[in-house]
Parts: sequence; C-alpha cells; structure tokens
Amino acid sequence: MVATQLRENVMPLILGPAEVKQATNMGQMIDVIEAGIREQAAGNVSMPPRQNLATSNGFFRVMPAVMQDGGKMGIKIFNGSVEHGVRYIILIYDEKGGELLCMMDAAYLTGARTGATTGIATRYQARKNAKTVGIIGSGLEARTNFEAMCAVREIQSARVFSPTKANRERFAEEMSAQLGVTVQSADSAEAAARGSDIVVVATNTTGHSDNIAYYGEWMEDGQHINSIGATGGHLREIDPQAFANADRILMDTIVGVKEESGDSFAAIDAGTWDDNKIIELPQVLDGMLARESDNQATLFKSVGSAVQDVMAGFAVYEQARALGLGRDIDNFLEHKIF
Amino acid sequence: MVATQLRENVMPLILGPAEVKQATNMGQMIDVIEAGIREQAAGNVSMPPRQNLATSNGFFRVMPAVMQDGGKMGIKIFNGSVEHGVRYIILIYDEKGGELLCMMDAAYLTGARTGATTGIATRYQARKNAKTVGIIGSGLEARTNFEAMCAVREIQSARVFSPTKANRERFAEEMSAQLGVTVQSADSAEAAARGSDIVVVATNTTGHSDNIAYYGEWMEDGQHINSIGATGGHLREIDPQAFANADRILMDTIVGVKEESGDSFAAIDAGTWDDNKIIELPQVLDGMLARESDNQATLFKSVGSAVQDVMAGFAVYEQARALGLGRDIDNFLEHKIF
Repeated sequence: MVATQLRENVMPLILGPAEVKQATNMGQMIDVIEAGIREQAAGNVSMPPRQNLATSNGFFRVMPAVMQDGGKMGIKIFNGSVEHGVRYIILIYDEKGGELLCMMDAAYLTGARTGATTGIATRYQARKNAKTVGIIGSGLEARTNFEAMCAVREIQSARVFSPTKANRERFAEEMSAQLGVTVQSADSAEAAARGSDIVVVATNTTGHSDNIAYYGEWMEDGQHINSIGATGGHLREIDPQAFANADRILMDTIVGVKEESGDSFAAIDAGTWDDNKIIELPQVLDGMLARESDNQATLFKSVGSAVQDVMAGFAVYEQARALGLGRDIDNFLEHKIF
Repeated sequence: MVATQLRENVMPLILGPAEVKQATNMGQMIDVIEAGIREQAAGNVSMPPRQNLATSNGFFRVMPAVMQDGGKMGIKIFNGSVEHGVRYIILIYDEKGGELLCMMDAAYLTGARTGATTGIATRYQARKNAKTVGIIGSGLEARTNFEAMCAVREIQSARVFSPTKANRERFAEEMSAQLGVTVQSADSAEAAARGSDIVVVATNTTGHSDNIAYYGEWMEDGQHINSIGATGGHLREIDPQAFANADRILMDTIVGVKEESGDSFAAIDAGTWDDNKIIELPQVLDGMLARESDNQATLFKSVGSAVQDVMAGFAVYEQARALGLGRDIDNFLEHKIF
C-alpha cells in the first residue's frame, strides 16, 4: 500500500558559503532571475505572502515559490535575532519530478540576488547611456548592487560614501580591483549622489529609525536611484521627498514595499506616496514603459521576493554543477508512492 | 557593516531514511510530541495555516512551527504528485540560537508522527483497560498507529483487515513478531472492528471518493476509534454515521480536519457534524475531560500539524545524537551579523 523506495537518480547537492560565492556569476544570475520575473508577469507563478513567525528573540521566515512553466520551485527559510545574526537556507526542487536538487547557504546569496534584481530594474529603467554610479553604503549589498550595475550598463566610474572612512576606502580599493572600474571615496552621501547617472542606496540602518541616507532634494533629472535597504518597518533609508521627486517609481513587489519598508510608511504619512506613478517589476518586463524620456528621474525600491530567491538558487546551482562544486548527499530523501 | 562569519559550534546533522527509522522510538516520540501539544494548549506556539502551492502535477506544501517555551522550531516541506510520489523533509532549529540542527527525511517519520499523535489521543481518550485493537489497513500508518497503541495501553491481541489477503497476513506476522502481541488476520473490516476496545482506521483511499472503510453502525459502547486517513478533500474512510454515533469526537486540529478531510465534508453534508461534542487535542491535554464513562464511544480524527512534525523531528534528532547516527555537515550555513 505505501511502498517506500530510495530515489535512484538525482542526489541533492549541498553548497556552503564558499561554494555559493564561487558559483555566483552576476550576469547569469540577472538573466535567470529575469526569466522568473517574466514568468511572474505572465501570471504563472505561485507565491503566497511570506510567513513571518515570531521567536523568543527575533523571527523565523518562510518564502516558497513555484514556477510551473520554468519547472522550478523552492523555498528560502531564514531566522534572525540581534544576538545571533541571520541564517539563511534555500532549497530548490525540480518542479515536475519533485526532486530536491540543492540545499545551499543563502547569506551571501541573498545579497547577490538583491543586487541582481536591482540589475534588472536598472536594465529597464536607467538611461541607456548611464556611465557613473554613486553608492551610499559599503557592505555586502552595496557591493553586489554595484556589481550588478556594471553588468547592465557600461559603467566608467563610481563614488562611494559610508560613514566610516576606512570602510568606504576599502570598498573603493577592492571594488576597483574586482570590477576594473575607477571607484573613489566620497566625503558625504550627497557628494556620492550628486551628478551620478545611477545612485545605489544600500545601507544598514538597523535600529536607527531616523537615519536617512539619501534625501530626495539631491535627485537630478535623468537619474535612476536604487534603494534596497530599509526592508523592515522600523528601518529608514530614503526620505519622503524622494518619493515625491521621482517621476516614476518601480518596486519589486508593491505590496511588499508598501507593507514592509519604513520608508514607505514615512512617505504615506507625508502624503508623497502616489499610486499613479508606481509600477511593479513584472509589469516593466511585460512591456510597460519604464521611463518616457532621458530627463525623468526614476526610483527603484525593493524588499525581496521568493521568486528572486528561488531563481537565484537555480542560477547558483547551475553554475555549481558546471564547475563541479559542492557535496552530493546520497541516501537522503526517499519518496512515498501513493 | 555586514560581516559574515562561519558558525563555530553546532554542525547540522543529515539523517536519511534508514537512520530516521533507527532513531524512532515510539514511546519517546509520543512524549516529545505531547510536550509540544501541551505548549500549544498553553498558547505559546506559532503555527500559521499550512501553505499549499499548486505544481504542474501536484502540490508543494510548507508547514512551519515555533515553540518559544521549548526553544524549538522547524518546518516540514513536502511535495507530491501521483506520478512521482511524495517527498518529505523536516528541518529543525534551535529556537533561541537560531542554529539549524538537523535536516531529515520525513517519509517514514510522517507515518511515525501520525501514529505517535494517535497514541496521545488514545492515552487520554480510550478506556484505561483497553486490551484489544482492530486495525483496518496494513500500510505504514497502520503499523505506526498500532505500535503507538501498544505504547500507551497494555494491548494483548489485535485483528487486522486489508483488502489484499497477502498484505493483512504479512502485517499480522510481522507486527506480531515486532511487538510481541498476537495479531490475527480478519476476513472483513467489520470482523476486525467488532468487539475491539480500540479501532484503528488507517487506509489509503486515494482516488476512491466513495471508499468507506469503517461504518459508524459497527461502533460499540466503550470503543475508541482512531481515523487517520482521508486527509484530503477527495478522500473518504469513515461514514457520516460514525460522527453521529460517537459520544465525543477529538481532533488534532478542528480547523484542519473540518477543512481538509473528505470524511468531514460528508458528515457536514449529512448533518452529523456536531460542534458541541468536538474537542481539540490541546484541550484534552489542558485538562478537558476526554470521556465521561467507560460506556461512551469516542472518535479521534487527525490530518496532522506542523507542531507534530517539528516535535517528531526533535524526537528523532535526540535519539540519533544519542546513538551517533547520521552525517554532520561542516562548513554549511554562515550567519550574517546585523
């Protein structure tokens, strides 16, 4: 009646932090995530609202997604507390056969997919001839987002600001070497942002509810701004004026940004949240015009989604298999026949 | 800003099917799950409704739970299709420190935890002097449920019915040997049920929407009936008369049984669903009287819950660590500091 048999074919792969980093190719990840968001635009993705469970000292969060057309599905599970930090894992499955393909660390990967998603937004929203980037923040996301900018535009130079001088100087030095683009340290956030074709705001404002990193009054015609921090209701990164000054605002998920980001709460309070100029990433990929002229200022805001996570997991898995990385786990999951 | 560090202490354990079976101790598992349900009774468990995503040919389901008092949390993830069967995995975490402790196959474990949960229901609902069991079904769940009966009552003999003679005879032979209790093969479901102190209905009625395995007219004073099949809306196992004839009905989760079991749909249609006599497993553990006399007939119905899964996962993990089973995975999850 209930025969149990060992699976005979695909063994799931385990990828640790070093292997995930080695298997991350920003250009490829942007394309793989874009394919997932295109499927989302076509209405063929199942992605329920994320489940957020409270723990004694933090949270336990669950984000599944199924892409039937692409034959991909998976889940990101992460938990965090101020004392113990955040731990992320992504599991990906063959959506047709149901096989677990890979279990991978997703701490770095979450930063990489955030950058890759910004890359998609920038590909369709920034001016085609954008050449300069201003970066506010010097952490993992600042790095992955800048890397993504260089993958979708012919970036020639960048300026970075971060409150700690040593951090911005290290970013400038390391990213110049990594990407072959001249990155200079700037003395203020405004100095990094002013005159840049693209601005990346990627700050860690945990616990600093009034810590604005980017002010809308700095926004210039033709600029494209990416804001990927302030992913919690108690966090802040850009001010309400930024929502007012942008001609068009793109969000990875409108409901996510509206309900989860402290920046959104402030903009709604200030009356600068305008539904009429906000569009969602899948709509842009479905053909909606991102900007009407090179003079418009555009803003992208993201909080992340399960489609991004699962597709990023597939991107890394494909690279890891091609490179022979990771450990195969034999004799792991059996399957139960109906 | 975003330092990433390798975890230095607990390495997660991988447990495959053979190790999970070896690390399953029914008596211990019953006690561990009971502790989880007691915590649920005290109102300290976070367990959102399960997420059920559609796939091309089946489903992808996600069941997380957090037990703050016990310091335990985790998730069961399973997917299935008629062609490819069902694959189950459970991940368990230290709820305080956030560390992933174990990833285990949960095909057998799901059957074991279903049995263990029935064991809890039977411990508090069956007559103290119950000595005989009638079993309808001969699959994995019939086995684990019968094992649980023997863990909570001094069972002396049993009769088993299953439509295929070879299956019921093999069950009788193997379970007699395993548990040291005389198990005989019966020629009909009614013959197995009649005169038994406890009846276990554990059938696989997939695709047989009118396949009733147990009829309420067989119910006798003082009997306790456990029905753990028909966990989908298209499945059937007991008839509406069973709901009518039981003096008290216990469910693992009322909302789950009501919304997910085809048996419930039929009882509601037939007008035999009576909220006044239905109680939930946590209520019994919280002190509510399960039965008022040895003459009452009682029914337990279950569809499973994340608390049962996660606690069963902890039960197996504890045994596996004690027995030195499984594989430790080093260099797997890093954690990101705020």
